[in-house]
Amino acid sequence: MSPSQEDLALLDVDAVLDRAAATLAAKYAGVFNTETVERCVRESYVALFRTASIRTHLPALAEHFAGDRLRALAQAGGAIDKAVPEVLFLCVENAGRSQMAAALLEHHAGGRVHVRSAGSHPTADVEGPVVQVMHEIGLDLAEAYPKPLTDDVLRAADVIITMGCGDACPILPGKRYFDWQIDDPAHQAVEVVRGIRGIRDSIDTRVQSLLAEILPAPTGAASS
Amino acid sequence: MSPSQEDLALLDVDAVLDRAAATLAAKYAGVFNTETVERCVRESYVALFRTASIRTHLPALAEHFAGDRLRALAQAGGAIDKAVPEVLFLCVENAGRSQMAAALLEHHAGGRVHVRSAGSHPTADVEGPVVQVMHEIGLDLAEAYPKPLTDDVLRAADVIITMGCGDACPILPGKRYFDWQIDDPAHQAVEVVRGIRGIRDSIDTRVQSLLAEILPAPTGAASS
Repeated sequence: MSPSQEDLALLDVDAVLDRAAATLAAKYAGVFNTETVERCVRESYVALFRTASIRTHLPALAEHFAGDRLRALAQAGGAIDKAVPEVLFLCVENAGRSQMAAALLEHHAGGRVHVRSAGSHPTADVEGPVVQVMHEIGLDLAEAYPKPLTDDVLRAADVIITMGCGDACPILPGKRYFDWQIDDPAHQAVEVVRGIRGIRDSIDTRVQSLLAEILPAPTGAASS
Repeated sequence: MSPSQEDLALLDVDAVLDRAAATLAAKYAGVFNTETVERCVRESYVALFRTASIRTHLPALAEHFAGDRLRALAQAGGAIDKAVPEVLFLCVENAGRSQMAAALLEHHAGGRVHVRSAGSHPTADVEGPVVQVMHEIGLDLAEAYPKPLTDDVLRAADVIITMGCGDACPILPGKRYFDWQIDDPAHQAVEVVRGIRGIRDSIDTRVQSLLAEILPAPTGAASS
């Protein structure tokens, strides 16, 4: 029996994932075994596949997700230095609150922290109104995608902020945890998601306080 | 700062997972790198943690899940021979249909196939009425737990049966796929889940047909 069109499409996916694994294995040569890299790419693909809706760009997303996970793992193991604090935002679906918080912190931090986000039960897509209200303030979530919390990303984090996902995140020693009470933007009107007393601005206020708290205070006077 | 009680509990979990990884690494010495085994154990733990409700037995479940995943990976890669066909049942929550089907097939097969199950969006626990109606026919689901579909388990399967999870499972060449239309037992009364025209018996009928289809027909006469 010759393979069907569907099978051929999958063989193409396999080839794309093989190339992604080869690229990442070369990048992390001497840090991770090829087997570790290949497993991370393959499992990232299936993890995204089972909750995604549109699969067109999934091999590329899986390569991105796996690359970020391997970077996190290298950070956690000390193979890569952390230049700045690593902050991880968690919510249930990784489709609203944690995506907004990550984009806002990245914006305000201007490179002084590195930000990741994940969900306990990731859904197919970032919420439309969330993308819209972030776009209104010039922040682009077009490349954002919901993804599950994984051990590698958790271990790399210095600061972990949970929003509405209860105790779905293991508590590890040596990390700072915050739990924020923020309304869930899922199925809410755009007006509720943006604006004064809205979800976006509540998160923005907290993100700015967080940034002040985790960054070292500026020294009193510049020496010359 | 000395670690809190919570931190100490987590350090204990770390130690348990380290021992689990060491045991599995010894079992798969020459097949998988230690790093691969350790990653599988750690990621299995976090994957179950983020969707579980009661975490008491989670390190033991993570060891079980990781052990099964590594066995699947060894089968898929040819390092372990498959003595019998590998059958994988998938549904959304891995809390009802796929758990019932797995238990029923295991029962009827009597060792002639090996069975796994998983979900696209696993929930915290197997449904209570499902456990009850299986117990009524002498099948024990006390040890069963919902778990996500992973690449390793998917690759090991020869036959994949999906129930209600749409296209959440990648199509791989060389495997046989079936899609069964079975009502979801979630939030259904026990009477709906068991009995004539009930979910359990619908699955049972299909499982017996499946078994007849995938097992080689007995030869006409024994030679002597």
